[in-house]
Amino acid sequence: MSIVVMKFGGSSLADAEKIRAAARRAIRMQKQGHQVVMVVSAMGKTTDGLEDLADQVMRSKPAPKREMDQLLATGEQVTISLTAMALEEMGAAAISFTAGQIGILTDDVHTKARIKTIDARKIHEQLDAGRIVIVAGFQGVTEAGHVTTLGRGGSNVTLVAIAASLGADVCENYTDVDGVYTADPRIVPTARKLKQISYDEMLELASLGAGVLHNRAVEFAKNHGIPIHVRSSQNNRKGTMIVAETQSMERIVVSGAALKSKVARVTMSAVPDKPGVAGKIFHTIARHKIVVDDIIQTVADDGTATISFTVDLSDRDETQQVVGDLCDKLGAKAHAKFEDHLAKVSVVGVGMRVHTGVADRMFAALAKAKINIQNITTSEIKISCLIDRDQGEKALHVVHDAFGLGGRTKKASAQKRTGAAKRKKTTGKQTARRSRT
Amino acid sequence: MSIVVMKFGGSSLADAEKIRAAARRAIRMQKQGHQVVMVVSAMGKTTDGLEDLADQVMRSKPAPKREMDQLLATGEQVTISLTAMALEEMGAAAISFTAGQIGILTDDVHTKARIKTIDARKIHEQLDAGRIVIVAGFQGVTEAGHVTTLGRGGSNVTLVAIAASLGADVCENYTDVDGVYTADPRIVPTARKLKQISYDEMLELASLGAGVLHNRAVEFAKNHGIPIHVRSSQNNRKGTMIVAETQSMERIVVSGAALKSKVARVTMSAVPDKPGVAGKIFHTIARHKIVVDDIIQTVADDGTATISFTVDLSDRDETQQVVGDLCDKLGAKAHAKFEDHLAKVSVVGVGMRVHTGVADRMFAALAKAKINIQNITTSEIKISCLIDRDQGEKALHVVHDAFGLGGRTKKASAQKRTGAAKRKKTTGKQTARRSRT
Repeated sequence: MSIVVMKFGGSSLADAEKIRAAARRAIRMQKQGHQVVMVVSAMGKTTDGLEDLADQVMRSKPAPKREMDQLLATGEQVTISLTAMALEEMGAAAISFTAGQIGILTDDVHTKARIKTIDARKIHEQLDAGRIVIVAGFQGVTEAGHVTTLGRGGSNVTLVAIAASLGADVCENYTDVDGVYTADPRIVPTARKLKQISYDEMLELASLGAGVLHNRAVEFAKNHGIPIHVRSSQNNRKGTMIVAETQSMERIVVSGAALKSKVARVTMSAVPDKPGVAGKIFHTIARHKIVVDDIIQTVADDGTATISFTVDLSDRDETQQVVGDLCDKLGAKAHAKFEDHLAKVSVVGVGMRVHTGVADRMFAALAKAKINIQNITTSEIKISCLIDRDQGEKALHVVHDAFGLGGRTKKASAQKRTGAAKRKKTTGKQTARRSRT
Repeated sequence: MSIVVMKFGGSSLADAEKIRAAARRAIRMQKQGHQVVMVVSAMGKTTDGLEDLADQVMRSKPAPKREMDQLLATGEQVTISLTAMALEEMGAAAISFTAGQIGILTDDVHTKARIKTIDARKIHEQLDAGRIVIVAGFQGVTEAGHVTTLGRGGSNVTLVAIAASLGADVCENYTDVDGVYTADPRIVPTARKLKQISYDEMLELASLGAGVLHNRAVEFAKNHGIPIHVRSSQNNRKGTMIVAETQSMERIVVSGAALKSKVARVTMSAVPDKPGVAGKIFHTIARHKIVVDDIIQTVADDGTATISFTVDLSDRDETQQVVGDLCDKLGAKAHAKFEDHLAKVSVVGVGMRVHTGVADRMFAALAKAKINIQNITTSEIKISCLIDRDQGEKALHVVHDAFGLGGRTKKASAQKRTGAAKRKKTTGKQTARRSRT
């Protein structure tokens, strides 16, 4: 019997009626002959409420991270029990599990923990007994028994990790968007929903701020070869399948464009230009679980180096502290500069591997729109430009048009059309989503 | 170094400011040279909110008890983490533990679980490291890892069980009442606060509905010889010490009077009068964790027995189901009658063991007030009368006066005065309290 893991985000579980709707979906899936596991997030604005409480208590300093995790994990615990109740009410046998109960073991990096192992036996036992199993997303437990949380996109990481540990055939990711779009449709109304996208493209889009799925979840799915179906909890239409790359995908040059609107750039100057220094710097930053991007190193005439890189604006303060300490250790002259007012616009597509001229077309389009490029980074399937934040949305429009990604535009392009651009604007959120979904 | 366990009820932790006040008390206690453990309840109305959510999901039947426990336990988990944060904010080292993390093992009777063992090592380790340890009250965990809750008065059970497992010198029970009174001061304005009371008296008062402390907590404290200090979280005045009996206590005939205003009487008729039948009946009821009181058995001319007993009105529906099933099994004629409109008024005092005439004085006072006694039960230190619920409060006044328990009355009595009757009416709640405190 095949196993399906269904994940519901916070906005799809915001009240009792939505919880009942999610339960109905799970029962329908079970009646189709599958064993069903549900991974659920905290209801609607629960996390905000818990964070407010912590803020009221902590006035002079940030909350201790262990206790923050202990607090936030209650949000999912509420949802798992209510979801189990809804299932029982509808006549289905169900049982809920916290991460601790099901053995989702993580490292001990509180608020940003990583899953090490999952004990699948307990879930299999319950599935074999005919129950629908509900697992709390976003949380884990250390070997010493401390509660951890998985950070941004944590519930999706739980989804894929559970699916991998169970050998599930597919992850169904029910959310308030109905799929992955060629660009954020709230910013670019002509954006089209994609039928499918490769893990690698999704990884680039996710890390660039497309926001449908966090890259940790996609990486996990890629490594285990598990397809993720991103779809709406509001209807039964198919969404976007995130799958392994196929040759036919290469016919499309660019699959999507993304905007990361909150980027900070750090420039460290007068860094001793000795072997191992850069390694030490980024090792130290990585130890603080700060994600660094777009690294550029240049050497000045005096033999010192300048190292610049970007971080998410939310990591800016912690980065400043870490970098400040590093400068102190590196020598009297070393110092750092911070620029907060940046954004990053990118295009992504596995077709770039076989097609040329993509960078040219992007730069020409931005230049024509009088958008100054402050930095360029590329990968095999991605081109990113750092720009002023105020020009971010305009830039996204420009590149989306330049590659003919829109469903309604008649502009000539090498793009293959994958579907109609029908969608409701209200359901088409792609960015600025709740951090737990 | 002596260990003090301080427990704070939900109304003493209703908002961030109250949590900070509780944290300040704990730090003060630690600065006096004690190792400090805090046991905390869910904040204010949290439990009501969670129960409302369950009601919204469960429309046609009661919530499955395992999931109800999984849900309700989040209330205390929120408080422990916020309390730990408040302590850290004030510069104290602190760590919070759920029942599962600290190993509060219970049986698997969900919603009414009983503590089997507590692993004290983890708490000792943290105390020895200089931390204030915060433990979630009201909850436990089964050996299989399921979350349980301890039922009415559960947080006080946790308080005493933690104190016992640690070998603590005293339990400090901070609440919204400033001690134990001779009667509920909201009903009887002349009621006095007692300086001390014996475990046995408190047990009778608690099981009779005085409501300051649940009898399971007092029994636990008695068995382990741990004094409980019931005091107000609003001020630093001493409250009432619940302690082992002393000879001097016997000089007082009656220590207090109590009213249990929601009592149901069950009368089973045409029960076969064979050995073992009554045993089977009460064994079956006990298996459902329904507390039975005031059992009376009579045998009719036809050789069948009539068995009557009382239960708390909240257990009435479950009792009806259990008793209905029993009647079906006992034979065609067996049937049961239910009376819901009863109350029980009682007087309690260890002095009854050496003084006579207590029952006479009580019956005479009730008779004079034209209150009909429907049933009488006595123990060594207690006399209870079952009466019509509408006359409950009047009866409490009458017996309180009859034994001269009031602080302001000049009526002659054998009572020793133990203190002034000063108290604020708003802080003097003794009954109808939150079930978790």
